[in-house]
Amino acid sequence: MGNWEENVRKVVPYVPGEQPKRANIIKLNTNENPYPPAPGVEEVLRQYQASELRKYPDASATDLVNAIAENYGVQASEVFVGVGSDDVIAMSYLTFFNGKDPILFPDITYSFYDVWAEEFRVPYVTIPLDQDFHAVLSDYDRPCGGIIIPNPNAPTGITEGRAFYEELVKRHPNQVVIIDEAYIDFGGESMLPLIHTYDNLLVVQTFSKSRSLAGSRIGFAIGNEKLIKYLMDVKYSFNSYTMDSVTIQLGRAAMEDKAYFKECVGKIIDTREWTKQELKRLGFVFGDSKTNFIFAKHPNLDAAEVFQELREEGIFVRYFPKERIKDYLRITIGRREEMETLIASLEKKVQAKSC
Amino acid sequence: MGNWEENVRKVVPYVPGEQPKRANIIKLNTNENPYPPAPGVEEVLRQYQASELRKYPDASATDLVNAIAENYGVQASEVFVGVGSDDVIAMSYLTFFNGKDPILFPDITYSFYDVWAEEFRVPYVTIPLDQDFHAVLSDYDRPCGGIIIPNPNAPTGITEGRAFYEELVKRHPNQVVIIDEAYIDFGGESMLPLIHTYDNLLVVQTFSKSRSLAGSRIGFAIGNEKLIKYLMDVKYSFNSYTMDSVTIQLGRAAMEDKAYFKECVGKIIDTREWTKQELKRLGFVFGDSKTNFIFAKHPNLDAAEVFQELREEGIFVRYFPKERIKDYLRITIGRREEMETLIASLEKKVQAKSC
Repeated sequence: MGNWEENVRKVVPYVPGEQPKRANIIKLNTNENPYPPAPGVEEVLRQYQASELRKYPDASATDLVNAIAENYGVQASEVFVGVGSDDVIAMSYLTFFNGKDPILFPDITYSFYDVWAEEFRVPYVTIPLDQDFHAVLSDYDRPCGGIIIPNPNAPTGITEGRAFYEELVKRHPNQVVIIDEAYIDFGGESMLPLIHTYDNLLVVQTFSKSRSLAGSRIGFAIGNEKLIKYLMDVKYSFNSYTMDSVTIQLGRAAMEDKAYFKECVGKIIDTREWTKQELKRLGFVFGDSKTNFIFAKHPNLDAAEVFQELREEGIFVRYFPKERIKDYLRITIGRREEMETLIASLEKKVQAKSC
Repeated sequence: MGNWEENVRKVVPYVPGEQPKRANIIKLNTNENPYPPAPGVEEVLRQYQASELRKYPDASATDLVNAIAENYGVQASEVFVGVGSDDVIAMSYLTFFNGKDPILFPDITYSFYDVWAEEFRVPYVTIPLDQDFHAVLSDYDRPCGGIIIPNPNAPTGITEGRAFYEELVKRHPNQVVIIDEAYIDFGGESMLPLIHTYDNLLVVQTFSKSRSLAGSRIGFAIGNEKLIKYLMDVKYSFNSYTMDSVTIQLGRAAMEDKAYFKECVGKIIDTREWTKQELKRLGFVFGDSKTNFIFAKHPNLDAAEVFQELREEGIFVRYFPKERIKDYLRITIGRREEMETLIASLEKKVQAKSC
C-alpha cells in the first residue's frame, strides 16, 4: 500500500440536521415547509416524458429562469440558478470573493459561510452580533474583500430591515455584497427592488423553504446583468450541466403558482405568530423571527436536555452545542396541530421546573 | 459604480456541444443515447409523490448507492455518487489532487481535465498521445501528484486495454489514479474488478451514456472504502444535499433493469460496428472505437467543411478546431436509420471529391 493519503485533503465533515426514519414523528429540525409544493409540481411528474431524459438538460435552465424573472419582474439575464442556494453561494464565493482582503460575515450565522471560505481559500473575518443577536453596522466599516449576510439571519430568525442592508451595500461599493434571503418570504423586506440601484448587490434565494421544494435542490441569485454574467462564466467554465431536466420543470411549476405560494406562506406566518404567543406565555425568550423558525431559550430550562426529551417523545427540533447559542432551541414552524403538540409538551416541562 | 470587478475571477467559459431546438434533426454531436431510459424510469415519474419534495433529499442517496453496489457486486461503502461524473471528478480533484507535484493526463482527452486543474489550482502536465492517439506507458514514469485518464479515451474512442491501466495504477502506488470510464459499457474492459487489489484506484462512471439519463445528471465513483470515505468527507464538508430526491429514484430504476441495459448497449454496439464498416468503405480512417462514437477523418475531405455541410442538412456531429485533431469529426452512434442517413450524405460528399 502506498502513501497516497499524503495528498488527500483532510476536512471536518458537516453534520446535517437529523433525518429520522421513524413514522409519526413531528419534524421541526430542518426548516422544511410543512405543506406540499404547488399542485403544478405533481402535474409535471405525472406528465414528464422519460424519453426526454436521454438528452442533456438545457444548460441555461431557460424555463426555470424565465419563470423566476417573470415572478420578480426582472430580466432573465439578471437571474442565475443553481442546485440549491448552497451551490449558488459557493459559486458566488468562487466568482466574487477572489481578492486578498478577508470577506466579512456575522459570527452567528449559516454554518457554511466559513466552510466555503476555507474550501476556496478565501480569507475571512467574522463580525460578532451584539448580545441580542443584532448586527452592528459600524462593525463592518473596515477594508474587506466582500460581505455575505443573511436577511433574515439564521439561526436567530432576526432581520435588520432593508435600510441596514442597503447601507452595508452602499458603504462597500468596491466589494460584492451577497444578501442571503433563504427565509425572506416569511416576512422580511427583500433587497430585490435595489438590484438596479447597486451594481455590487447580489440577492440569493431558494425554493427549499417557502416553495416546499427542499427535495429538488433549487436556488437562485438575482443581481445586475454584469454580476450574473460573471457568475455564469465561472459556472460554465467547469460544470455546464448541473440542474437536471425534471427539476427545471418542477421549479418552473412551483414558481408559476403565485396564489398557492401566498396561501402556504400565509399559513406558516399565522402559525408562527400563534407559536410566538404561546412560547411567550410559557416564559420563553426569543427575537422577533421573520422566518419559518423560532430561536428560543427559557430561563429555567436546559436547552440540551429539552432537545433530548423532545426527541424521545418523537418531536425533533434543532440544538447547536456552540458557545453563544447553547441555551437556545431552533424550532421550525410546522402545521398548527404539530405546534400545539410541541407547546403542550413544553408547557409540561416548564411546569415541572417551577414546582 | 465601484471597482468590485477587481476581485472577480476571470475565466474562459466552456462552450458545450450545440443543443439545436429545430425539429427533425439528427443529433450525433453530444454522445447521447438514442434510446429512452429503462421503463422503470417512466414508472418512477408516474408514481413519485410530489408531497415528498417538501423534505430534504436523503443526503446519502441510499437507494441509488445500493442499486449501484448491487449491480457491480461491491459494498455500498465503496460507492460515491454525484451530479454527473463531472461533479464526481471535480470532487475527486479537490480530495485527492492536493499535493505539490503536477497531476498527469493525456494531451488529447476530455476537455474538462485542465479546466478543473486550473479551477482548483492543481498543477498539471499533459502527456502527448502517440500519432495514432495511443497513450505511451513509459511517458507516465515521472514524479506526479496523481493521474486521470479515460478508458476508453475521448474524443478518440480508443482504449489501451486493462493491462495498460493496471500497470499505470501499479507504478504509482503513492498517487491516486482515476480511471474515467464514461464510455466503458460500449466494449471496453472495466477496471472495476481491480478496486480491491489497488487501494489507489478510483473508477468513475456515468448514467449519461449507456443508461440514457444524460438529463438526470448522475455519475458515480467506485473504489476502496478508504478512498470513498475521503471523497464523502470533502463533499459533505461543503454541500450535503446535491442530488435531488426524484433523481435518486430515477437512477435506482435505471440501474435495476439489467436486461434493458444489455439490450440498448447491444443495439448501439451493433450499429457502431455497421457504421465502422460503412465509414471504412467510404475511405474514412479511425481508431477502433469501443465507445458510442467514432472519431474519424477522411484523406480527401475537409472536416470543418463537412461539419458545416452536415449541419445545414440537419445532421449535427462534433468538430474540435484544435491543432492535433482538426481533421477529425466525432460522430455519436444514433439509431440505425439515423446512421444510414449520415452514411448516405457522407457517400455523396466523398463521391463529389473523387470526380
